[in-house]
Amino acid sequence: MTKPPLHKAAQSVTAAQPGRGNAGRRKAGPAFLFDLDGTLVDSVYYHVLAWHEALDSGGIELALWRIHRSVGMSGGLFVSALLREIGLELSPERVTRLHQAHDDVYARLAPRVRVLPGAKELLSYLTSVGVRWAIATSGMRQSAQPVLNFLEISQHVPVITRDQVHRAKPDPDLFLAAAERLDVPILESVVVGDSIWDLLAARRARALGVGLLSGGFGQSELERAGAYRVYQDPADLLRHLDEVGVRTASTPTGGSLEP
Amino acid sequence: MTKPPLHKAAQSVTAAQPGRGNAGRRKAGPAFLFDLDGTLVDSVYYHVLAWHEALDSGGIELALWRIHRSVGMSGGLFVSALLREIGLELSPERVTRLHQAHDDVYARLAPRVRVLPGAKELLSYLTSVGVRWAIATSGMRQSAQPVLNFLEISQHVPVITRDQVHRAKPDPDLFLAAAERLDVPILESVVVGDSIWDLLAARRARALGVGLLSGGFGQSELERAGAYRVYQDPADLLRHLDEVGVRTASTPTGGSLEP
Repeated sequence: MTKPPLHKAAQSVTAAQPGRGNAGRRKAGPAFLFDLDGTLVDSVYYHVLAWHEALDSGGIELALWRIHRSVGMSGGLFVSALLREIGLELSPERVTRLHQAHDDVYARLAPRVRVLPGAKELLSYLTSVGVRWAIATSGMRQSAQPVLNFLEISQHVPVITRDQVHRAKPDPDLFLAAAERLDVPILESVVVGDSIWDLLAARRARALGVGLLSGGFGQSELERAGAYRVYQDPADLLRHLDEVGVRTASTPTGGSLEP
Repeated sequence: MTKPPLHKAAQSVTAAQPGRGNAGRRKAGPAFLFDLDGTLVDSVYYHVLAWHEALDSGGIELALWRIHRSVGMSGGLFVSALLREIGLELSPERVTRLHQAHDDVYARLAPRVRVLPGAKELLSYLTSVGVRWAIATSGMRQSAQPVLNFLEISQHVPVITRDQVHRAKPDPDLFLAAAERLDVPILESVVVGDSIWDLLAARRARALGVGLLSGGFGQSELERAGAYRVYQDPADLLRHLDEVGVRTASTPTGGSLEP
């Protein structure tokens, strides 16, 4: 199979509209449910720093690698998991203040966040070949919107945020809701994420999980969390879409999860 | 074997002086050659951020995870390796400016750096039982000194820095020089580090490499780079010193690398 043309795909992500609008188009493979932070934008390390500073200002000293390994969970689960690790219990008010402190620090760091290599090209390519895709993030809609704008993602793309579901990753709700919004069975969906929480949620949803190293987890960590394949970043996934069942123009039959 | 008493070991690291001063004491196990950043202090993520900002200000966009996977090499190798990855060649002047930009940003972030859990207790404990140890870091003496002060490391502890050897990690020179300064055969030395570069250098030196997760690498990454054992952080290593050949008071015979 020929590789998708990376250089030719660098058109606007909004060039074609994914989602229900593509229902009449030939199905080119599974649907894709993308995590946002660390998967499409290079924001994980800045979230880690923001949590570190927030916890530190709240008198809680926690090593950065432990914070790194916990981000990607929902904010609520994240704080509980971290505090459990150091045997600390906080009042709901103090947890709220921690979240606020994180948001304040992150807002200061956000201008440094960049789109990950190949992210726009990947989304644009999927759209151009009629593959449906959606975003499913543990973040709130309010914090996700600037990132979506930054990625130039069309308003027609289904975006599921933390505030729209009962439970966040590693619970499967976000991905299940995203597949439902695309009107695609979860069994025909590929979840793409950078953290073990994405991959655990993918397994619980019975989707196929694909890991990206771009969030700073190690390859084995992602494989042990159930990744079917691990790629470096969105650009690397774009080069290997045939491995996850996307049929390009040269092989127009498709629809199965198997290459 | 009883575990070393973590709570009782929290005395000053300078309580006893390691190095040649201990030559007459009973040998309690192998010598320890410690990396500094990410191994004893929680500075790796801040170095990653500083490099990211430095590269960005120099017009070079590179994802944070790639920078993370390269720090711990010597600065010179680090920049070459990163640039090779994106197919870029820079003039020596521009590389010097990148290093200066990194140092400037890092100086701004340094007040956020904390000692890793158990670091002082581990060093203090080793000193108290007569185990010799030294520091071997890819950093320059000038940048390492504030960190050594921060850790309250005695001036009598041998410290090998980048400027004292011909080649830095993953070359073995730093660890070989550290063992020589301790007057200990490298074959009776344990290298403790958080990055794959420490462990690769340990193998090239024919020392026993012990990995710590505290720099943010994954366990398998460290194991594949040759780690004999991997612990979470210095506190976790202190709880498992028997696994790397340190004889505590209850089992006074020792000297071999095998438990």
